[in-house]
Amino acid sequence: MSGQAPQNTEADAAPHRPFVARHRDLLLGLLAVVLFFAESSTRTRVSFELAARTLSADVVNISASGSSVEKGESLYDTVRTLQALGGDVVVMRHGSSGAPYFVAERTDAAVINAGDGWHAHPTQGLLDAYTLRGALGDLGGKRIVIVGDVVHSRVARSDINTLAPLGATITLSGPPTLMPTAWRRGALPPCVTYEPDLDNALEGADGVIALRLQKERQESGLLPSLREYSHVWGLTEARVARMRPNAPVMHPGPMNEGVEIESSVAHGPRSLVETQVTNGVAVRMALLYLLVGTPSLEAG
Amino acid sequence: MSGQAPQNTEADAAPHRPFVARHRDLLLGLLAVVLFFAESSTRTRVSFELAARTLSADVVNISASGSSVEKGESLYDTVRTLQALGGDVVVMRHGSSGAPYFVAERTDAAVINAGDGWHAHPTQGLLDAYTLRGALGDLGGKRIVIVGDVVHSRVARSDINTLAPLGATITLSGPPTLMPTAWRRGALPPCVTYEPDLDNALEGADGVIALRLQKERQESGLLPSLREYSHVWGLTEARVARMRPNAPVMHPGPMNEGVEIESSVAHGPRSLVETQVTNGVAVRMALLYLLVGTPSLEAG
Amino acid sequence: MSGQAPQNTEADAAPHRPFVARHRDLLLGLLAVVLFFAESSTRTRVSFELAARTLSADVVNISASGSSVEKGESLYDTVRTLQALGGDVVVMRHGSSGAPYFVAERTDAAVINAGDGWHAHPTQGLLDAYTLRGALGDLGGKRIVIVGDVVHSRVARSDINTLAPLGATITLSGPPTLMPTAWRRGALPPCVTYEPDLDNALEGADGVIALRLQKERQESGLLPSLREYSHVWGLTEARVARMRPNAPVMHPGPMNEGVEIESSVAHGPRSLVETQVTNGVAVRMALLYLLVGTPSLEAG
Repeated sequence: MSGQAPQNTEADAAPHRPFVARHRDLLLGLLAVVLFFAESSTRTRVSFELAARTLSADVVNISASGSSVEKGESLYDTVRTLQALGGDVVVMRHGSSGAPYFVAERTDAAVINAGDGWHAHPTQGLLDAYTLRGALGDLGGKRIVIVGDVVHSRVARSDINTLAPLGATITLSGPPTLMPTAWRRGALPPCVTYEPDLDNALEGADGVIALRLQKERQESGLLPSLREYSHVWGLTEARVARMRPNAPVMHPGPMNEGVEIESSVAHGPRSLVETQVTNGVAVRMALLYLLVGTPSLEAG
Repeated sequence: MSGQAPQNTEADAAPHRPFVARHRDLLLGLLAVVLFFAESSTRTRVSFELAARTLSADVVNISASGSSVEKGESLYDTVRTLQALGGDVVVMRHGSSGAPYFVAERTDAAVINAGDGWHAHPTQGLLDAYTLRGALGDLGGKRIVIVGDVVHSRVARSDINTLAPLGATITLSGPPTLMPTAWRRGALPPCVTYEPDLDNALEGADGVIALRLQKERQESGLLPSLREYSHVWGLTEARVARMRPNAPVMHPGPMNEGVEIESSVAHGPRSLVETQVTNGVAVRMALLYLLVGTPSLEAG
Repeated sequence: MSGQAPQNTEADAAPHRPFVARHRDLLLGLLAVVLFFAESSTRTRVSFELAARTLSADVVNISASGSSVEKGESLYDTVRTLQALGGDVVVMRHGSSGAPYFVAERTDAAVINAGDGWHAHPTQGLLDAYTLRGALGDLGGKRIVIVGDVVHSRVARSDINTLAPLGATITLSGPPTLMPTAWRRGALPPCVTYEPDLDNALEGADGVIALRLQKERQESGLLPSLREYSHVWGLTEARVARMRPNAPVMHPGPMNEGVEIESSVAHGPRSLVETQVTNGVAVRMALLYLLVGTPSLEAG
């Protein structure tokens, strides 16, 4: 499960994997990882939890409800407390952009951003880049389409920030109402373009990442209807066929099948959605390992 | 705690048990167990969690609230994701009958049904059979009474399905309004009879299993009152004395003492209620062990 | 993190601590610890959880919501069930004073009171005494001020019960409406006095413990306003300067900064708030170790 190339995940995910493939006691007794999720999440939390447990770290879960956050404690004090409790690493999801950076400056614990507001979701960027490299090899000169609700998407921002330095170019697509105003008007980051017509965007592309559409967007008037969204910007089999042969389809999950992605595409031969999930555990294991560093491992 | 005969659980449950009685690292590094409980539960979840931890498996908890299930993800995608994350075994409780079977067909992970709707609760059937065998020996020719809200009870169905193949006969008792219509009218499964009069049902029986009465049944008009239910179908000391000497009293818990069972019976000398709980951990350890199978254990 | 003197916690809390400082497999396979928190808590629950995990015990979390407690099961039956499941130690927080004592008498599991109503929070008393001894040495003849909402505070009661036998005297301060009636009228426990004027109380004191002010107290008419409370009984820099040089400031957390304690005091050089948190894990490790006792350790 850990560190495997994405191509062979199906085989390795079978229950009868050999012992050695699983546990590495690299962090045994070395690391207490606190998962502090002030926004609900299943896949990211479980991914971090399994990554830490597989390395034999101690893991403690904290959610915002029922925690001292509800009792009016400041975020700063909560994280100082987690560190004082012995938390070496705080994995933090928070609804406010910048919250993990605020606390990281004020604690000795390592803070990992597991998603902050609309700002960033860095481990998603890393796992997406790792998955694309597994499928496409060197990303230099490759063109990846990101389609959907870009303005509210921390995944889109982290994907751009990870893929562009690796040499890829990014074509954004989706409704103009769901693009950052400056980007819609042409003031885009380097290596990024905006093409509102998804068919044009996909033509000859090397891969596509569909973003999750929050259904609340319709209620807030940014979309005429989910049906229209699906018709114009949903990933259909016909549309993904416009890309290069075998160009992969990705989605950070959870998917709204029938809205931003057709079920046949979500589970079709181009889909790397489950590979992304599997790779996420490996990427987070690597991150935890690198954060702890070698001196203490040698001491063990 | 693990694998012990039910007779000596009290002694073994004391804190000072020897090391060897506890941990068996059979599944160390071999198995990640995801507990996916879409309905709330304490005893079944904790039982599975301790069973898995005692075997040194990694355990991750997921509840429906705060999970991607709430975000509209399909059950199929949730379980595929859990498997892609590295979950080898998904222990699943769900309000819809059949849900675990639906997902088991669509994932490579082993899926254990921890209770689905009114349909089945197979590990409860196994632990009840194990507990009865510990008390009675061979179940061939033994007669077990199951009393209460049979129509809504997955426990009753799994008990019948487990006890009948072991040679027991089952006498159902309880209000006709809480029996499946066909069964009330006589179209009963093999080895099962229905006797509305509890005193008659218990006469000479080898054991009795009282079912939990959901208090909502009264509100929905299926019962005149809890008091009347208790008067006619509650297990009292006088009633259990109609059974054979030492015939055991069981209950899947949590008990409504004073409704379906008197406190003096619940905690009396015939009660195996706590033995059932203890045995549940052992039965679930065995199940997890068998699901993983020997090849990977040899590889370890 | 474990067993260290409070003075050097900052250095030891850094991520690169040596392996040996962390894990002691003293309880590996020996102990299942059930954390049963019927009231929400972050710091106490996480502290017990990390204490148990650091000793390699198995840990299971249960909250009141979603548990069988909600289904109407009696507290007695819940704890009997936890023991039957194999729980050797039940760490219990409950809103009703006395609840842990009630169940401790009726189960073979070791029951640790993690806070019951207004009554007691014994491990907080132990960790506060341990922290004060680290700062002040022998507590004989030392005078400690406890300021705030004493009547509703299980922390105050446990601090008194722990510090007084170690030779300290305690000066209570705070609004008369938040003192037990008998105490306000002079019928105080041995070694305890009440001084409503906080400036007088702090004069020459050896240390101060500020209690958390529940904001509901204002709504219930026991306080004119939080602002007035803060003005008269809040810990300010000027006030703590009345104590002996370097006399420490403590708080059980979570703090309402700006109400019972100024931020500059909470995070100032006298503050031992984070040391308390760190020491809490060590104290709870010691407690778990002592509860299990040496015979089973020798057997391991």
